[in-house]
Amino acid sequence: MGHDIPVTLHPGRPSTDINADVGESFGRWRLGDDEAMLGIVTSANVACGFHAGDPLTLRRTCMAAVERGVAIGAQVGYRDLAGFGRRFVDVAAPDLTADVLYQLGALDGIARAAGGRVAYLKPHGALYNAIVTHEEQARAMVEAVLAFNRGYDAALPVLGLPGSAFLAVAEAAGLTAVREAFADRAYRGDGTLVPRSEPGAVLTDPAAAADQALRLVQAGGVDSVCVHGDSPDAVALATAVRTRLTDAGFGLGAFT
Amino acid sequence: MGHDIPVTLHPGRPSTDINADVGESFGRWRLGDDEAMLGIVTSANVACGFHAGDPLTLRRTCMAAVERGVAIGAQVGYRDLAGFGRRFVDVAAPDLTADVLYQLGALDGIARAAGGRVAYLKPHGALYNAIVTHEEQARAMVEAVLAFNRGYDAALPVLGLPGSAFLAVAEAAGLTAVREAFADRAYRGDGTLVPRSEPGAVLTDPAAAADQALRLVQAGGVDSVCVHGDSPDAVALATAVRTRLTDAGFGLGAFT
Amino acid sequence: MGHDIPVTLHPGRPSTDINADVGESFGRWRLGDDEAMLGIVTSANVACGFHAGDPLTLRRTCMAAVERGVAIGAQVGYRDLAGFGRRFVDVAAPDLTADVLYQLGALDGIARAAGGRVAYLKPHGALYNAIVTHEEQARAMVEAVLAFNRGYDAALPVLGLPGSAFLAVAEAAGLTAVREAFADRAYRGDGTLVPRSEPGAVLTDPAAAADQALRLVQAGGVDSVCVHGDSPDAVALATAVRTRLTDAGFGLGAFT
Amino acid sequence: MGHDIPVTLHPGRPSTDINADVGESFGRWRLGDDEAMLGIVTSANVACGFHAGDPLTLRRTCMAAVERGVAIGAQVGYRDLAGFGRRFVDVAAPDLTADVLYQLGALDGIARAAGGRVAYLKPHGALYNAIVTHEEQARAMVEAVLAFNRGYDAALPVLGLPGSAFLAVAEAAGLTAVREAFADRAYRGDGTLVPRSEPGAVLTDPAAAADQALRLVQAGGVDSVCVHGDSPDAVALATAVRTRLTDAGFGLGAFT
Repeated sequence: MGHDIPVTLHPGRPSTDINADVGESFGRWRLGDDEAMLGIVTSANVACGFHAGDPLTLRRTCMAAVERGVAIGAQVGYRDLAGFGRRFVDVAAPDLTADVLYQLGALDGIARAAGGRVAYLKPHGALYNAIVTHEEQARAMVEAVLAFNRGYDAALPVLGLPGSAFLAVAEAAGLTAVREAFADRAYRGDGTLVPRSEPGAVLTDPAAAADQALRLVQAGGVDSVCVHGDSPDAVALATAVRTRLTDAGFGLGAFT
Repeated sequence: MGHDIPVTLHPGRPSTDINADVGESFGRWRLGDDEAMLGIVTSANVACGFHAGDPLTLRRTCMAAVERGVAIGAQVGYRDLAGFGRRFVDVAAPDLTADVLYQLGALDGIARAAGGRVAYLKPHGALYNAIVTHEEQARAMVEAVLAFNRGYDAALPVLGLPGSAFLAVAEAAGLTAVREAFADRAYRGDGTLVPRSEPGAVLTDPAAAADQALRLVQAGGVDSVCVHGDSPDAVALATAVRTRLTDAGFGLGAFT
Repeated sequence: MGHDIPVTLHPGRPSTDINADVGESFGRWRLGDDEAMLGIVTSANVACGFHAGDPLTLRRTCMAAVERGVAIGAQVGYRDLAGFGRRFVDVAAPDLTADVLYQLGALDGIARAAGGRVAYLKPHGALYNAIVTHEEQARAMVEAVLAFNRGYDAALPVLGLPGSAFLAVAEAAGLTAVREAFADRAYRGDGTLVPRSEPGAVLTDPAAAADQALRLVQAGGVDSVCVHGDSPDAVALATAVRTRLTDAGFGLGAFT
Repeated sequence: MGHDIPVTLHPGRPSTDINADVGESFGRWRLGDDEAMLGIVTSANVACGFHAGDPLTLRRTCMAAVERGVAIGAQVGYRDLAGFGRRFVDVAAPDLTADVLYQLGALDGIARAAGGRVAYLKPHGALYNAIVTHEEQARAMVEAVLAFNRGYDAALPVLGLPGSAFLAVAEAAGLTAVREAFADRAYRGDGTLVPRSEPGAVLTDPAAAADQALRLVQAGGVDSVCVHGDSPDAVALATAVRTRLTDAGFGLGAFT
């Protein structure tokens, strides 16, 4: 696969970013076609071991990302392998901050050894959903990023849902908030997502997802488009989204 | 507690280091008196979460170490919480390298957020013992440290048993090898340790441990003295060792 | 310790049960004085490995319980070692049912090998609290007990908070519901517990706990008195409760 | 799939058993086509949660096995999810016995709730290989089965490699030892397996595996034929083995 579609950023030309989750295999268990996805996206949300991702998987994923020039993000989650981080856990703030700092450091160690570095943070699964409204956990997350930034003299941006408590707290604390839209999740009229438990919540048709991605990016207010990497048609869908965006004249590049 | 015993390093005066394991609590379970031990030792081997140590414990331990000026080492182990890292695991080299890199990065993230950094590596438990002779795992460990050093432009030394395959491989690869002696473990005539399964393997009398520590340091060939932190008398024993060494004219300071 | 206080059940004499959590050590980490507690209580809530309790600890605990004639209960919890089962986890009902069935079977295997059997179920920590009101998780728990009872032709009762959704669902499904009161937790005027986050939530004075235990048992509507096993004064407190109850003429025996 | 191939056991007709590993998914991660395999084999080695298999997966697998009349075996392993139980762990005997008893009980609870029961034990991965020669771990395994048998008044047989220390210790202790051959692993002239690390160790051609299975069964000394369930061609290979054996006149039925 690879970057067959040439990417050229022209001054003044509108550009955007495509992100997807990778590195979610664990030991004997494989998940997703990371190699293919890293040939399509510009930002890779690499799991950090708490909800998915064993260290060797992370290492190989970071090496592949660096090789292809894809930005590495830390996809942090609750400590819940059995639930794949998709179950809300009522973690106290000091624990959540430490858990996230631990995951950020671990992935950064792996990424640097591969010649890269952690370039942003994106929360995963139930944690992502929780901090849309859960102020205490949102603040705990931001506290972890601030601590990491101080420690490494870094300036990690955070990726999240537009309008979420998480992005609001992050911006108030001086972090760069990156707003993302989902190519393959259905939206309600008010801009919120249709819950996964409802029919039609997930778009599986590549053309429909590509249409939605373009519409969302053109409407503005979005810095990155998320495509999911663990469905059977993930690669076809991500390819359709990328092609639609570039055909419409958007340049593609990591937001970092 | 704290550094009640004044430490002054005089030029020309012989000096040594005292190290102990800390940060080995996990969630609800407490182990050792880290606060007290950090008031005695000059180097702290902080657990990294694979055999012990939850992230919040690591964070508090690193904060306390930084506050007291104690050097932070990464005490890396096999992924075996149930066995406390004391059971040999036949991990393949690429996995072991990635596991150790992950642990190094995680603790470094925590340590930097506390104003410090990981300053050395010390293997724990069964891993420590295995790489006395297990060439493949020894090389995998050294590979992890080399990768970490490249990634962060660092020069972590490694702490281990004099004469071990681990220190030999480390030195051959250009790493600084720090040789340690045990104050509270019985030695055989040939310089090897009496196995824990044999009677008398562990010295519990503070005076006897202090005597042995002084004897080993005076004999030379040793850069650091290890005292164990998880026995009931750990604090009394470590205090006795420290006092004996300073009374004998040794300056105390981290080897880093 | 042991049953130094003779227990004789007289016909017509009022009797009650004392329960406590045991078997909560994990690998290297010890928690509570199980030996002493098993000499005081009549029912032992043995952890099942998901929030605490490694298999060898469970085996030794069950052996000690059988030896002393103490009833063995399965203290089931969320799969959360790092949080000791004290954090709510939003587990889906089919997963929770399977998780609980797994824990029940595991402990029963251990208990039977020791010459006993699992005689009742008690939820632990955040799970205990959640199913006071969380109907879906309460039903999932009851479903697990029903499935276990069918499988082994058993009739496990369940221990819980009077007035909870859990006990209501259990009784509606034909299970025996055992109502417990806490000797060492403060109650509000309306009969609910003062949350642990508030000052005075936990009674630490043995005499005060003994007074409260007697008052609650005399008031009726309570089948068992719970004392906690993991505080420093657990043994003294449990002893005080037992003595007060027997001095007041209550016979002590497992409710099973 | 299902039992499309009719199975009739005739008196006097030679018969054998086919076993395969199932229930090895974990949470979000799927592994193997359990539904299809349960339509082919007569004995199902169900993972027990230590190296693979979450409780809900185990429950569904046991339900499907009971529905199809396939015998349920406990496929017990080292506590090593990250390594899928394929790495030797130097567990002490008392821990191993308790770990195995825990797994046996857990699966039995799940199996009984599904209307079945655990009918035999088969060790998995590195544990299987270790106890070919590791006397201490072999004895610890047998001790677990003996304790389980006492507890449930059962008589579980154990499945293993002919000539192994495990089967020898089991028989000496009065257990029924079931000898298995591998359809899809290459054998050396002396009857030992070619290690997986060598080329040609695994047979991937269904016809070749079927040939080998028939040859081994006809040679005698084998009570069950193992086919692996986690390779891409597992179903085709298992089907070829089953067809070859029935075509040659063997009846198929669980050895239990």
